[in-house]
Amino acid sequence: MKKYLFTPGPTMVPAEVLLAEATPMIHHRTPQFSRILREVTDGMKELFGTAQDVYIIAGSGTAAMEAAVVNTCSAGDKAICAVGGKFGERWAELCETYGCKVKTIDIEWGKSLTVRQTEAALKEVPDARVFCVTHSETSTGAYTDVAAIAALTRKTNTLLLVDGITSVGIYPIRMDAWGVDIMVTGSQKGCMLPPGLAFLAVSPRTWQAVDACRTPRYYLDIRPMRKELEEKTTTPFTPAISLIQALHCAQRMLREEGLDNVFARHARLAEAARAAMTAIGLKLVAEHPVNGVTAVWAPEGINTGKMTKKMRDEWGVTIAAGQGDAKNRMFRIGHMGYVSAEDMLVAVSSVERALKEFGYEFEFGAGVAAAHRVLFG
Amino acid sequence: MKKYLFTPGPTMVPAEVLLAEATPMIHHRTPQFSRILREVTDGMKELFGTAQDVYIIAGSGTAAMEAAVVNTCSAGDKAICAVGGKFGERWAELCETYGCKVKTIDIEWGKSLTVRQTEAALKEVPDARVFCVTHSETSTGAYTDVAAIAALTRKTNTLLLVDGITSVGIYPIRMDAWGVDIMVTGSQKGCMLPPGLAFLAVSPRTWQAVDACRTPRYYLDIRPMRKELEEKTTTPFTPAISLIQALHCAQRMLREEGLDNVFARHARLAEAARAAMTAIGLKLVAEHPVNGVTAVWAPEGINTGKMTKKMRDEWGVTIAAGQGDAKNRMFRIGHMGYVSAEDMLVAVSSVERALKEFGYEFEFGAGVAAAHRVLFG
Repeated sequence: MKKYLFTPGPTMVPAEVLLAEATPMIHHRTPQFSRILREVTDGMKELFGTAQDVYIIAGSGTAAMEAAVVNTCSAGDKAICAVGGKFGERWAELCETYGCKVKTIDIEWGKSLTVRQTEAALKEVPDARVFCVTHSETSTGAYTDVAAIAALTRKTNTLLLVDGITSVGIYPIRMDAWGVDIMVTGSQKGCMLPPGLAFLAVSPRTWQAVDACRTPRYYLDIRPMRKELEEKTTTPFTPAISLIQALHCAQRMLREEGLDNVFARHARLAEAARAAMTAIGLKLVAEHPVNGVTAVWAPEGINTGKMTKKMRDEWGVTIAAGQGDAKNRMFRIGHMGYVSAEDMLVAVSSVERALKEFGYEFEFGAGVAAAHRVLFG
Repeated sequence: MKKYLFTPGPTMVPAEVLLAEATPMIHHRTPQFSRILREVTDGMKELFGTAQDVYIIAGSGTAAMEAAVVNTCSAGDKAICAVGGKFGERWAELCETYGCKVKTIDIEWGKSLTVRQTEAALKEVPDARVFCVTHSETSTGAYTDVAAIAALTRKTNTLLLVDGITSVGIYPIRMDAWGVDIMVTGSQKGCMLPPGLAFLAVSPRTWQAVDACRTPRYYLDIRPMRKELEEKTTTPFTPAISLIQALHCAQRMLREEGLDNVFARHARLAEAARAAMTAIGLKLVAEHPVNGVTAVWAPEGINTGKMTKKMRDEWGVTIAAGQGDAKNRMFRIGHMGYVSAEDMLVAVSSVERALKEFGYEFEFGAGVAAAHRVLFG
């Protein structure tokens, strides 16, 4: 059975990238590896929109989020966390774990952080060390206007930490121009790789906080990451060499497509998913939806855990159910990374089939037709 | 140019394993992934010699060492660290980073921790929380008799943390029978994988210390690792799926060879390397050498940095120079993981060629002949 993976990470990986991952091992303390590391680092700088180096960590995206916190926050520091879903919660959990006094901005699932909420929080906690936001909240599909938030934080001493795990490679990111202080992402999303790499870049003004930070850290300490990269073009600990070889290939493919085309493709895929779901009478979870995943409320009475299981096991098409409280009431179609316009027809068609089998009454085919018109009209 | 990688990690990866790593992505919250995770976890239990679960972390071996420390040691706790090389130093650095009062047992490079030193340290610091040792010290090639050390620590309340990064898969490990409290390893050594996975298992008595430990931790917290594995056969954060698929294949290959044969092969490779180096008049660094790597003092006046560079760039044969102070005075031949008896001839022959070119006078071919007799005699 041919398999399609429409989850919001891991995502489908091009065969070229999979085979690049299968390149025989080379040692990481060699000019051969340093050349690759330099090239993929430069490629990530372009995706982040920054002149700063991007550090590559062997780990999942959460490791990079933790690195952002443990390198800036000491116990007792104040943190503001925008929490509108599972990944906003993760920022708050990380800050609490490391002893921060956390003020959460509680956002209804599906809504996005507003400029007004940001202004109020910065006014309430003017001495906050960090302000943590989620650029693309994977659990709800809600978008945060990071440029607008950064326009406020950059005027303060509060550092803006951005989870870009499902935004980097999907949107044009302008870390430096916006004034983001730390941006993080993971490999298994817009980068078209398997999971196992995490990425992090740091604004110049952040280093002062990094040096002053008293939180103990070792594997996730970004100071040796900077030193080893600048002095020897290597990493402090053994890197995930095969994934870095794969990244080299994935970046070449992104460049060949053209980054602007990559971003436009994601915008079109998202528009098609939204149009399709709306055409069959369903409601999107997010008010301002992202371009990497479309979260949809299931029709009353349909258990999305069962629905997605059937799709995966019987038809080979994997989409995600919800997370947290919304686990069985929501489904999420991932369309990030190596997803073509043609693939979107498969995703929408499979959702339609499943909804019909689970008893939802609608004009069968209306979703596919709507997607088709957006994608190819 | 055909390439040979004789470094003490990363090591050569079988083509079968490289291609298994190229298996298309599957989602990690599925029965399909859970079945693989259960099987590779069971395979690691066998390699560790434990009935306890082995946790798989996306990260390098250092991440697992750090997990061992942050889950057991709180600031102010006492730690004993046996330091006879770079990886012993890493234990001490980790314990110091997290605020432990560290007593180091300073071991001359090349010597091994003795039972007498262990007894004395345990007597001097009877309330030590942890005792950290390196089973196979990769920087010197020195072996520690972990069974003998564990026979002492198991009678105390001090937990024995063992870096098994270059011993697991190379020696028969009996974590439970010996009484080791935490054993860690990495993927790019005896497991025949690329780097990117770290492994850790914990003795039953250790959990009390884990629950009492006040050190903040999130990504490396082993409590959610246990919970997610026991309750849902999954990992708390997105795992490095492709490397786990590769591990599945590597374990099958190890089983097909037979673990006893795998261990015997490493013993024979090491014996051949030692015999060869001795036959050409060189001196081993380690008094009790390990089976995964052979560290050798270079003849007076030969710079091993230059020597290993020539071997790598001109002949495609990569061995390692030294580390730390011994960087350019020592070379190390890695023979762990996917290394055959035939490969050893290549390693020894290349070392002989390089030594001759760098002006060392010896009976050219004596090393290869000695290795040949050990390997095939």
